[in-house]
Amino acid sequence: MHTPNQLQEVIENAVQNIQYAAHPQRLYEPIRYIMSLGGKRIRPVLTLMAAELFKGDIQKTMPAALAIETFHNFTLIHDDIMDNAPLRRGKQTVHEKWGVNNAILSGDVMMVEANKQLSMLDSAVLKDALNTFNATAQGVCEGQQLDMEFEEQEVVSIADYINMIRLKTAVLLGGAMKLGAQVAGASPDEAEQLYTFGENLGIAFQLQDDILDVYGDPEKFGKQVGGDIIANKKTLLLLKLKELATENDLQELEYQSVNKDHVDKIKNTTALYDDYNIRGLASIEMKKYSDKAFSALTSLNIAEERKTELFSLADQLMNREY
Amino acid sequence: MHTPNQLQEVIENAVQNIQYAAHPQRLYEPIRYIMSLGGKRIRPVLTLMAAELFKGDIQKTMPAALAIETFHNFTLIHDDIMDNAPLRRGKQTVHEKWGVNNAILSGDVMMVEANKQLSMLDSAVLKDALNTFNATAQGVCEGQQLDMEFEEQEVVSIADYINMIRLKTAVLLGGAMKLGAQVAGASPDEAEQLYTFGENLGIAFQLQDDILDVYGDPEKFGKQVGGDIIANKKTLLLLKLKELATENDLQELEYQSVNKDHVDKIKNTTALYDDYNIRGLASIEMKKYSDKAFSALTSLNIAEERKTELFSLADQLMNREY
Repeated sequence: MHTPNQLQEVIENAVQNIQYAAHPQRLYEPIRYIMSLGGKRIRPVLTLMAAELFKGDIQKTMPAALAIETFHNFTLIHDDIMDNAPLRRGKQTVHEKWGVNNAILSGDVMMVEANKQLSMLDSAVLKDALNTFNATAQGVCEGQQLDMEFEEQEVVSIADYINMIRLKTAVLLGGAMKLGAQVAGASPDEAEQLYTFGENLGIAFQLQDDILDVYGDPEKFGKQVGGDIIANKKTLLLLKLKELATENDLQELEYQSVNKDHVDKIKNTTALYDDYNIRGLASIEMKKYSDKAFSALTSLNIAEERKTELFSLADQLMNREY
Repeated sequence: MHTPNQLQEVIENAVQNIQYAAHPQRLYEPIRYIMSLGGKRIRPVLTLMAAELFKGDIQKTMPAALAIETFHNFTLIHDDIMDNAPLRRGKQTVHEKWGVNNAILSGDVMMVEANKQLSMLDSAVLKDALNTFNATAQGVCEGQQLDMEFEEQEVVSIADYINMIRLKTAVLLGGAMKLGAQVAGASPDEAEQLYTFGENLGIAFQLQDDILDVYGDPEKFGKQVGGDIIANKKTLLLLKLKELATENDLQELEYQSVNKDHVDKIKNTTALYDDYNIRGLASIEMKKYSDKAFSALTSLNIAEERKTELFSLADQLMNREY
């Protein structure tokens, strides 16, 4: 078995070695670009870790891991168009660099590349892998749709919000793990348990992100602290505050939402969060999901020592400050 | 064996019976919309006809036929965004009706729906089918990319143009047939021969389209006669004329390209085509590809009577006036 860092390196190498067609250059160049922007490769790492739990071979599982990573990067290209985002990992987004039309089409062909990767799996596991992959991809699209709709919606319930982040973010972590388990020959129940682990870990991870956006250490947090507040993003914290706040405080929140002084806006909105102990309440909500994740992994009927790396990775993700 | 009309009806029914998820509504509504705009369903008909050549079962082949038709309609949604097209089959395009972001995302999830259809095929033929489908999808994306690039390019050779329409249009006809043959258990050689038939038929079909745009009967041709001329579209006819025209005639062509009086523009450009017998030359080029198609089907080693329907369909496509 390997550590997450070792697996990340193996994946990084495999990503660099994917051969895309040379022509038309403008179609494939954006794929090479986004795939080489790096990141922690957390999704394919989870696929390989899930496979190793069941003594699966890393190289045999690699097509599934690369399919997941390629699909994820495809969604980044199309999401960035829809969100009108100028930057991705500190670099120009694909549509900024090559134009929207090119970004749409390079994204489309990346989806095909992901499916090509997947089709290299052993025939014996192919059908199950396709079903998991397609269900995952569909969920991610649904999540992005809900995310866009929620931006326009006046009222969003916390349950709806959790369902949205489940689809947009968590389903892919769950799917990545289920895929790894299936390729390694896990039983349907075992594969499903890993899905549960990954999905709940993903929800907890995203809620943690919501908390860190406000309470993260500016020295350690990768993004701008208060970014969600500036953008009036409907996060768990904002939705929770809206549920609890008095009429007066809701008015203050409304006023802050149009405050052009960003430093002041962050300070005053955070003060409102503090008044209602939103950080504590959000942490409780987050813990619900991380508990579910850990309990799914705990109840998985395999030797405890095989689970060590996965427990430690999950622990690390849940206790990060960045 | 069935006639193309019978198969079209079977497919129409199957398309109407595809169950898409209900929510998020705005994600799936565009799929139902574009899939119900109709059309001749020529690609899935070819898939089923190819299967019947090898005594394949229609219902067993249907997932492949529906995957092809779903994929084709997905490309229509994304192409219409890129081409900024307001209408598709006389109705509002998806991005006009639901907005660009929604059209991108509904297209994406349609690609997943196509893959879901395909994954319902028998495990025994799944890997070959995936390879054919993915190679086809990749080719179509490359064709669209080249089409966009050619619009910006000053000089496009006829060979490059034919390669572009091969990828953008013909590869999908070839892939549709190869897929049908593979699902029905044809040998690799037989499947490849049907691919050759479909691909060359597709090229001839598109060249025929270029000719009909100028010389079609306005009463019978589905689109506006002269539409390509108005749009200064680089068709086989225009590229051929540019190859042959004198300096003077090239100047006249240049002048016509900015002529705002469309009736006059069509009349004068067509006169230039007539001067160089472009219609005859284009027909010769077209015939090269239809001959290749017919010869691939002729040399296929199966009972002649099984080929009758396919020959007659191809004949009809090549001698259409609309």
